[in-house]
Amino acid sequence: MKKVAVIMGSDSDFPVVAPAIKRLKSFGIPVEAHVMSAHRTPEAAAAFSAGAAEAGFGAIIAAAGKAAHLAGVLAAHTTLPVIGIPVKSSTLDGLDALLATVQMPSGIPVATVAIDGADNAAILAAQMLALSDEGLAAQLAAMKKTMEDGVRTKDEALQQKVAEL
Amino acid sequence: MKKVAVIMGSDSDFPVVAPAIKRLKSFGIPVEAHVMSAHRTPEAAAAFSAGAAEAGFGAIIAAAGKAAHLAGVLAAHTTLPVIGIPVKSSTLDGLDALLATVQMPSGIPVATVAIDGADNAAILAAQMLALSDEGLAAQLAAMKKTMEDGVRTKDEALQQKVAEL
Amino acid sequence: MKKVAVIMGSDSDFPVVAPAIKRLKSFGIPVEAHVMSAHRTPEAAAAFSAGAAEAGFGAIIAAAGKAAHLAGVLAAHTTLPVIGIPVKSSTLDGLDALLATVQMPSGIPVATVAIDGADNAAILAAQMLALSDEGLAAQLAAMKKTMEDGVRTKDEALQQKVAEL
Amino acid sequence: MKKVAVIMGSDSDFPVVAPAIKRLKSFGIPVEAHVMSAHRTPEAAAAFSAGAAEAGFGAIIAAAGKAAHLAGVLAAHTTLPVIGIPVKSSTLDGLDALLATVQMPSGIPVATVAIDGADNAAILAAQMLALSDEGLAAQLAAMKKTMEDGVRTKDEALQQKVAEL
Amino acid sequence: MKKVAVIMGSDSDFPVVAPAIKRLKSFGIPVEAHVMSAHRTPEAAAAFSAGAAEAGFGAIIAAAGKAAHLAGVLAAHTTLPVIGIPVKSSTLDGLDALLATVQMPSGIPVATVAIDGADNAAILAAQMLALSDEGLAAQLAAMKKTMEDGVRTKDEALQQKVAEL
Amino acid sequence: MKKVAVIMGSDSDFPVVAPAIKRLKSFGIPVEAHVMSAHRTPEAAAAFSAGAAEAGFGAIIAAAGKAAHLAGVLAAHTTLPVIGIPVKSSTLDGLDALLATVQMPSGIPVATVAIDGADNAAILAAQMLALSDEGLAAQLAAMKKTMEDGVRTKDEALQQKVAEL
Amino acid sequence: MKKVAVIMGSDSDFPVVAPAIKRLKSFGIPVEAHVMSAHRTPEAAAAFSAGAAEAGFGAIIAAAGKAAHLAGVLAAHTTLPVIGIPVKSSTLDGLDALLATVQMPSGIPVATVAIDGADNAAILAAQMLALSDEGLAAQLAAMKKTMEDGVRTKDEALQQKVAEL
Amino acid sequence: MKKVAVIMGSDSDFPVVAPAIKRLKSFGIPVEAHVMSAHRTPEAAAAFSAGAAEAGFGAIIAAAGKAAHLAGVLAAHTTLPVIGIPVKSSTLDGLDALLATVQMPSGIPVATVAIDGADNAAILAAQMLALSDEGLAAQLAAMKKTMEDGVRTKDEALQQKVAEL
Repeated sequence: MKKVAVIMGSDSDFPVVAPAIKRLKSFGIPVEAHVMSAHRTPEAAAAFSAGAAEAGFGAIIAAAGKAAHLAGVLAAHTTLPVIGIPVKSSTLDGLDALLATVQMPSGIPVATVAIDGADNAAILAAQMLALSDEGLAAQLAAMKKTMEDGVRTKDEALQQKVAEL
Repeated sequence: MKKVAVIMGSDSDFPVVAPAIKRLKSFGIPVEAHVMSAHRTPEAAAAFSAGAAEAGFGAIIAAAGKAAHLAGVLAAHTTLPVIGIPVKSSTLDGLDALLATVQMPSGIPVATVAIDGADNAAILAAQMLALSDEGLAAQLAAMKKTMEDGVRTKDEALQQKVAEL
Repeated sequence: MKKVAVIMGSDSDFPVVAPAIKRLKSFGIPVEAHVMSAHRTPEAAAAFSAGAAEAGFGAIIAAAGKAAHLAGVLAAHTTLPVIGIPVKSSTLDGLDALLATVQMPSGIPVATVAIDGADNAAILAAQMLALSDEGLAAQLAAMKKTMEDGVRTKDEALQQKVAEL
Repeated sequence: MKKVAVIMGSDSDFPVVAPAIKRLKSFGIPVEAHVMSAHRTPEAAAAFSAGAAEAGFGAIIAAAGKAAHLAGVLAAHTTLPVIGIPVKSSTLDGLDALLATVQMPSGIPVATVAIDGADNAAILAAQMLALSDEGLAAQLAAMKKTMEDGVRTKDEALQQKVAEL
Repeated sequence: MKKVAVIMGSDSDFPVVAPAIKRLKSFGIPVEAHVMSAHRTPEAAAAFSAGAAEAGFGAIIAAAGKAAHLAGVLAAHTTLPVIGIPVKSSTLDGLDALLATVQMPSGIPVATVAIDGADNAAILAAQMLALSDEGLAAQLAAMKKTMEDGVRTKDEALQQKVAEL
Repeated sequence: MKKVAVIMGSDSDFPVVAPAIKRLKSFGIPVEAHVMSAHRTPEAAAAFSAGAAEAGFGAIIAAAGKAAHLAGVLAAHTTLPVIGIPVKSSTLDGLDALLATVQMPSGIPVATVAIDGADNAAILAAQMLALSDEGLAAQLAAMKKTMEDGVRTKDEALQQKVAEL
Repeated sequence: MKKVAVIMGSDSDFPVVAPAIKRLKSFGIPVEAHVMSAHRTPEAAAAFSAGAAEAGFGAIIAAAGKAAHLAGVLAAHTTLPVIGIPVKSSTLDGLDALLATVQMPSGIPVATVAIDGADNAAILAAQMLALSDEGLAAQLAAMKKTMEDGVRTKDEALQQKVAEL
Repeated sequence: MKKVAVIMGSDSDFPVVAPAIKRLKSFGIPVEAHVMSAHRTPEAAAAFSAGAAEAGFGAIIAAAGKAAHLAGVLAAHTTLPVIGIPVKSSTLDGLDALLATVQMPSGIPVATVAIDGADNAAILAAQMLALSDEGLAAQLAAMKKTMEDGVRTKDEALQQKVAEL
């Protein structure tokens, strides 16, 4: 099975990114995670991305905050799908990272998920890999069913709280 | 080869969406396009999405403006990757559609591209399909090379203009 | 008397939504509350909304955060008035939910109240039901009078604080 | 049948508001329209709103731009449901009017529709009146069906355009 | 000397508004403060404003949050200068109150100060009264001088901190 | 009678500012207008403001776009009330000028009107001068009455248009 | 004298960037301009920046729109000062480019000027070079004087227009 | 070696600005810091800036919040490069300071860094001085190398955390 890379621009992004790594592991998808910066280690980031397809990766997830260039810079060096997680930092509530990630010019897409939306980044990567992996597709369908059941259970639990108001 | 669906919330979105259809055709990817609305034809949208995987689709591209629910609603009924194109409409410059498309809750990702970024939506779909299609991967690499050459050509053409300033 | 449904996209929205339920109960309006998600339980949401009029509901209140599609999805399946409460979540201060709730396309209105404005959602529902219920109209008028008196009482209490500055 | 009032803050808002009046007429709902300003004719606005219920109105639609106080001021003098249309003016793309209309304090709701969303304001008013008017409810259901058919027709027309790309 | 009125939309705004009252008192300007709401006590607000000039007021300061209509509504009933303080509330960081206060239509100005800028509202009121009160003008000039000296003192204190870095 | 100064940061702001000059003239208020820049002619701006009170001015209106520092810089050199008009320029729809004008630090208020709100700036200046000028106060009251009548006339004219829809 | 590089992400940015080139030429500063893309020609951009100091450049000006990564990517490969011009494109009025350019992480500054502020980018570059070039410093001082005189001339011209109002 | 001035609008900005002073000291650059306000001590600010070049300064760093005029006002009185740090204050998350700092009119640039980006302001100043100081250039290159190594170290440390998820 193809691997998924999870790249974060700073190790301070780890708590935001961890759910993506956990979700990928839960699907049994091999995951490799790195701190790499579009600005501090640009050569390393470029080299990693340029070699990712050959190294067996099927998708790259990139998380960064502020002027979040990481996903775009990785996308510039590969034709693998790159998924961007805009990370909320101390100002502007993540709007800067969202716009810097999603507003890519024509030719170099970044598949952007919600601000701090690491879990969805992993699910999206799994959906891509599942296009040629029926077992993974079945896992995704099961996860969807579990979520649905979870809502139903919560709805039942809600009734008591509503009665008490 | 898997097909790609291009769904638009209104036929007035066609000029924005057309580049996606053209790009997919240029890759030789079978494309099916529909007007379907999360709000006006919710059953049709739900049914299409629920049956898309079985019908041979590998990805769904959804374009909508304003309170753009289309991509999210389609994503709710499938585990195929759904790509969202926020469409700029008459007010708020597309910010409403961007936030309504990208800020999906955990569990249901939408791979969001730039406002009016139809071309990138198509390239992203191709990148996903290319994970199990080496010919398509080669086409993507060639497109990247062509873009690169195009920039170089434009850089040469620029020199004359700069000299004339 | 017609019932009012209060639907929340996640049980984590309950603290925000509870004032609406309390206010409806205080008017003696029968209320039914559910956790239902436009994305996780789309069929349940659609079915509930499609059957709501026949089930005796007169209005549906829907609360959701982020890419808040819930109110719009419910509105797509009914001609009952749907009232949307945009819920503030961890980023963007509720602006995403506000735009995703209010910017509905022509044909499918959502009566949107302020971010986290659950109390007003309930009052608005009561105003709608009061159009054919004089007792409820009288209750609304009394509530308005009570609010007015409350301001006057607070104005009196203010005088002491001002004198002490 | 109860009447619907359509109040605009300035006669320059008429082109934006006209679709609401037309839609209400198409439902056979008696409509009365006025130019009234929260700032230029505050007494007239207050008096109209205070007397609206007794004068046979079932809902008030208010359209205003910029620091759009009109809907809120009308809502302050009645317990009828008040529907606010934020009008886009020459700066800020209607965001000012949206926030000034929707962010009402607890106790005084304004049912806000999209920026320049006059058609939806009328449909929402009709939905409210239809709670006690089965004929109107049937008209709303028919309109919904017509919209749905319209989308289907447009989808068919789209196929030719797509084939030509 | 003319009085200055300080009106707040809710008694919860008192901590924000208190610096204005203190500043006015420090200038020896007679001040009268009230809780009055554009939405909950509209008649009281209108009556107060309409009678303010005759009652000896020279300016009205109005503080409100969210869809802050208070200053505009007061301005609608008087030709006295009305100063608006947009109050930050639990969402949107005061942007809603700022736009709802400042974006007044032609004919009815509100002199808007910064979000939560109560001190400046008081100084502005004093500047207006000082146009015909030389003693007050002298106080304002002295205050300006004191502020200037304060900065100089802080600059001196800073040198030690800088040396320690 | 005291004069009012109308300062614009660039002569390209003249069309925006002209209504203020016209309105002041219509009140018979002596007006002096200048192009002065906080950035290009800072000494001239500072000197003008520092000498304005002595030169017989009662208020200063300042109009500027983008990083609109003009009103704040003038306010730094006087204790006269300074009224700021944020001017919309080619980007950001005037939001930059609004924030740069209104968000003044404690001690130095700028009485900010709406984006491009020159007419209101003039009326506000007149309201200030009218505090010690009964004739001007009467003019302001008359203007208010005229506006009110104008709305009523427009309301009558509207009826025909509504009937024709 | 050191050269200044002017890099634009797309040749469609040329009209925005041209004033920078003209201004640099007017100072007699040798300028070299290129189309280079952070996303389409990342290696070329990296190589150019990495070699810029040795090639005799003293500053790099980079102009890009949307998710404007160009300035940041260039800054990642050099310790020369990099000046960023955010370019307004078809949506969001340049806010995306501004945030993507200015919100750089600690360690890699980009000296950001106003949206579409090419002229200021050139002046800023000249100010940097002038630190060790007295002739250039004198030119800058002269330009400042000329601007000041220009304002004065426009102020005189304004008087006639004001008199005619 | 030329000095760098670090000016803050208020001593409450010191914690935000301190990293700039520390970074400059670490480079061995002589630094002078002051509290000076564009609004409270405008003459002092103007005089400092006008004399800065002659006093041996090579760059001025200015930090201010809200309607941040400080950098622009300093830039108006010098042809030295002025670097602006927009400071986040209690409302609007620094967006007001960012726009008030960066959106300078043509002719008077301010080299703007990220909101609260003091460290980058210092590095940018060092980059400017390094244009004519090879030792400083070498220090900047070494700092860049250290940052790069730091990322690599963090990447290694990350592997353990990822393994434990």
